[in-house]
Amino acid sequence: MLRTRFVHALRPRLARLASTSTPPPSGLCRAVLGLGAGVLLTSAFFLTRPTQANSLISKQQVGTSTVPVHDPPAKGIKVGAGTLAKELREALGDANGRLDTVSTDPEVLHIHGYSENDYHPGSAPTVVVFPRSTTDVVAIVKFANKYLIPVVTYGGGTSLEGHWRAPSGGAICVDMRDMDKILEIHEEDSDLVCQPGVGWMEINAELERRGIPLFFPIDPAPGASIGGMVSTGCSGTNAVRYGTAKGEWFLNVTVVLPSGEVIKTRQRSRKSSAGFDTTKLFIGAEGTLGIITEVTIRLAPILPTTVAVVQFPDVRAATEAVREIVNSGVGIQCVELCDDAFMRSTNLYGQSTRKWPEKDSLFIKLQGSTPTIMEEGRSIVEKICTAHGGTDFTCASSDAEANALWSDRKNALYSGLALVEGSRGWSTDVCVPVSKLPQLVYETKQDIESSGLVSTIVGHVGDGNFHALLLFKSEEELAIARGLVHRMVERAIRLDGTCTGEHGVGIGKREYLYEELGAGTVRLMKTIKHALDPYNLFNPGKVCSLFCGELYADTCTALPRFSWR
Amino acid sequence: MLRTRFVHALRPRLARLASTSTPPPSGLCRAVLGLGAGVLLTSAFFLTRPTQANSLISKQQVGTSTVPVHDPPAKGIKVGAGTLAKELREALGDANGRLDTVSTDPEVLHIHGYSENDYHPGSAPTVVVFPRSTTDVVAIVKFANKYLIPVVTYGGGTSLEGHWRAPSGGAICVDMRDMDKILEIHEEDSDLVCQPGVGWMEINAELERRGIPLFFPIDPAPGASIGGMVSTGCSGTNAVRYGTAKGEWFLNVTVVLPSGEVIKTRQRSRKSSAGFDTTKLFIGAEGTLGIITEVTIRLAPILPTTVAVVQFPDVRAATEAVREIVNSGVGIQCVELCDDAFMRSTNLYGQSTRKWPEKDSLFIKLQGSTPTIMEEGRSIVEKICTAHGGTDFTCASSDAEANALWSDRKNALYSGLALVEGSRGWSTDVCVPVSKLPQLVYETKQDIESSGLVSTIVGHVGDGNFHALLLFKSEEELAIARGLVHRMVERAIRLDGTCTGEHGVGIGKREYLYEELGAGTVRLMKTIKHALDPYNLFNPGKVCSLFCGELYADTCTALPRFSWR
Repeated sequence: MLRTRFVHALRPRLARLASTSTPPPSGLCRAVLGLGAGVLLTSAFFLTRPTQANSLISKQQVGTSTVPVHDPPAKGIKVGAGTLAKELREALGDANGRLDTVSTDPEVLHIHGYSENDYHPGSAPTVVVFPRSTTDVVAIVKFANKYLIPVVTYGGGTSLEGHWRAPSGGAICVDMRDMDKILEIHEEDSDLVCQPGVGWMEINAELERRGIPLFFPIDPAPGASIGGMVSTGCSGTNAVRYGTAKGEWFLNVTVVLPSGEVIKTRQRSRKSSAGFDTTKLFIGAEGTLGIITEVTIRLAPILPTTVAVVQFPDVRAATEAVREIVNSGVGIQCVELCDDAFMRSTNLYGQSTRKWPEKDSLFIKLQGSTPTIMEEGRSIVEKICTAHGGTDFTCASSDAEANALWSDRKNALYSGLALVEGSRGWSTDVCVPVSKLPQLVYETKQDIESSGLVSTIVGHVGDGNFHALLLFKSEEELAIARGLVHRMVERAIRLDGTCTGEHGVGIGKREYLYEELGAGTVRLMKTIKHALDPYNLFNPGKVCSLFCGELYADTCTALPRFSWR
Repeated sequence: MLRTRFVHALRPRLARLASTSTPPPSGLCRAVLGLGAGVLLTSAFFLTRPTQANSLISKQQVGTSTVPVHDPPAKGIKVGAGTLAKELREALGDANGRLDTVSTDPEVLHIHGYSENDYHPGSAPTVVVFPRSTTDVVAIVKFANKYLIPVVTYGGGTSLEGHWRAPSGGAICVDMRDMDKILEIHEEDSDLVCQPGVGWMEINAELERRGIPLFFPIDPAPGASIGGMVSTGCSGTNAVRYGTAKGEWFLNVTVVLPSGEVIKTRQRSRKSSAGFDTTKLFIGAEGTLGIITEVTIRLAPILPTTVAVVQFPDVRAATEAVREIVNSGVGIQCVELCDDAFMRSTNLYGQSTRKWPEKDSLFIKLQGSTPTIMEEGRSIVEKICTAHGGTDFTCASSDAEANALWSDRKNALYSGLALVEGSRGWSTDVCVPVSKLPQLVYETKQDIESSGLVSTIVGHVGDGNFHALLLFKSEEELAIARGLVHRMVERAIRLDGTCTGEHGVGIGKREYLYEELGAGTVRLMKTIKHALDPYNLFNPGKVCSLFCGELYADTCTALPRFSWR
């Protein structure tokens, strides 16, 4: 979540690259055609790479793998690419039309297979397609079914756990860049219909531009797109007030299933108890069950806010203050815990000129419909903080000051990275029951200290969710960071928590699902995946899904054998 | 939702009956044993009743079927019951133990197969089992798998759409009456772990008794149990403030799957993005995918409230006032629309002595952390109501008065029924985008007027959800009521709404799923049902699931044919 501006910066470059289509080397093209239009080849390398694919998350590799961010895509992946691209264009009816619909440009492939947001092994897709409609996506999925080619969907590119890595055997990457329209705004119903490629910040900017006093309150990384937010089951700083993507903000989704069938999960009413919650089936599925092509989101009224900052003797005091603040019922939109290291980094490199005591602190965004309600809330919050040992309670006296204070929290990545010159950062998150947060933070900070690495910690403390940014400069330090992340996750799971509060599983956290959820629950996930995607075509190897070539053996034993024949 | 107190009254009677076990008539028992311990028989009538089972919702029957509330269970259903009961006791290890574990008492069977809450055809189970633990439930499910006997779970018995009707071929009814314990209360985390048989009102009463200032805000019918609330995807008057069962109030569920395997969907942290949202898979599944045996629920802080009542010229004015109130961000816990007929019934038979203008009205429950915030909110709400033509804005000046005002809203069923002496009531609900509510209410009231029936309407107007109580005295009037419900549902679906906002599908609304969601979405539901319950043992015939003997033909064509062999 913290490194997203890098990806954000990549997007225009990507757009430029994608807008010029590179024909495949003619020699290769002939070779492929000579071997049967790439069908055999495609199926072949798809089916013969399970071992390499599996090794992506093998424990042996964790902590030792290199970061091939600048490697070119492996040779094998390019085999048949030209033919695939040509046939995909034909399948999309674009043989003579939009030249930027399908790309095999090496740099485009690279950007879609490697990430600067994480340090999981990279792997580029075979082709990248830029659909413009649900119909385009259906054509792509039918094509993938015909050739048994995996399909990986790419949204804002902000994910931190390798969600959109191609299987090492290659894949069609479906980039939603061009499906970024707001289709309908229903101000009177506080909802909006949009395509998956539009970002939550673009939506909020457009509502502001139109003078509509509503906003979409789920606030993950700045570059995150609606489709990716659905698929990750994300949240953000507003979750303490508005909940997460797993709540009731996504009213319905239109989805292309692995079979190529298009469904819409619900109509537009806010509530329905008409059968299974199929909308939720796709929230957190990370593109393994369907490709989102349209979404109806619920909007919330924009309320006046201000920002307060206060220091505490330790995380426990801060956490207990937050619990009392939340239970008081006063309007709180965000309440962020920032540790002493974070405050030091902000003092050194923060955007505001203010210098803070370098102690565990809370950044609190208060809501109040009227000045009277805001002032009443502010005074209650100050009283509670003081009662829990809070000091130097500072509340903004203007919107400008509030924005300046909040910018110090939002600037976490850059001020954090600046603590160690020339460092990179590994950002990860876990979540535990709120009362366990102090123990989790305390033990994690001890572990980090003894490792010799520098790190900052920020937490959505109202939800027991916290993020660590681990700084490193070398492969050796990267390996140490991997170990710290591993122990932080194990610690969170032991405390009745989760390996990921809002970043999702991808390939980075999947090894922890069995320990966190139990074999039966993972098997249930695989059973659903198998039922919807028996060819394992959609984003194979992510969440609980199999790597190419694996069999659903454990699924098959999970249920009584039966045939309707 | 409105008729639940009748069921509530039944529960003690049921408990008394269930506590005495009746051995089967010995002659019948011998006959059964003579035919092979009832196994063949059980399977036999289970597999040979599809036609009769299907007819349960055949359109032909709608509007013409009788209400066999006082009929004895059909003869066939008793065949093998004694043997089943004996073997179930043995399976539960209770051969010489708890005599009240399994019951074949005709009255117990009748209570579990017929309902005074609805007018769908009744059908009694073969035996009723009262498990006390997850282990008991596993034993029951293994037994059901051995003999291919359907399993129907029974919670609070408050459902309105025939959710717990036995298939006409018979079934094991699993009554959660004895699994009603609160297992853990985590005040510091605002959550609680309980068994499915406990009611939301019992939970809130226990928290109050312990002096814990938290409550569970999902508030359907008074008698509703947590397991049934999960399974129905319910909500209630608090939904405008706290959302529904499909939100984030159920943190995890422990479930016995149709295979007999026990899973727990999540740990206890408030947030997690670790894979598919398997908790949501069981919310709204109505017992067709698993049997809930343990639940972790999130609790909310109890805040001071007061109640205001105000009249409007029409529903449109009231709805627009509500939208502005909600968007103002002032603390609103409930906002209920009550039509002129409802106000008339309240004046005639309400619990409070107050007489109201007989106009479309709002009952508003305001929240305020402090007297200052409450007063500020009250004055904003009054201003908005007045601006939209609201008159006689009355706000309680004490908790006692607030309770008296709210009791008039909560007394909807009894005051409503009293409008027509000797009448019974058909209660149904639909939900549409808020802006469509006035049209829906207007057209529905026109339809009711021209039908000659009397009805009251109450609505959770903040969510576009409304309930009609249609009064009738004869079979002819019941047929008219069926027709009105049918047209009300068709109207809601046309307005981008749903056939049920919070009552669920059961057998009463399943005929509308295709029209509301499309064939593909229903097929997706069936695909999931088939994957988890290939024998179709769990609550067959409810939601999208098949009636006994039907085949998943359409499911099989929905996905590409593939075998991992």
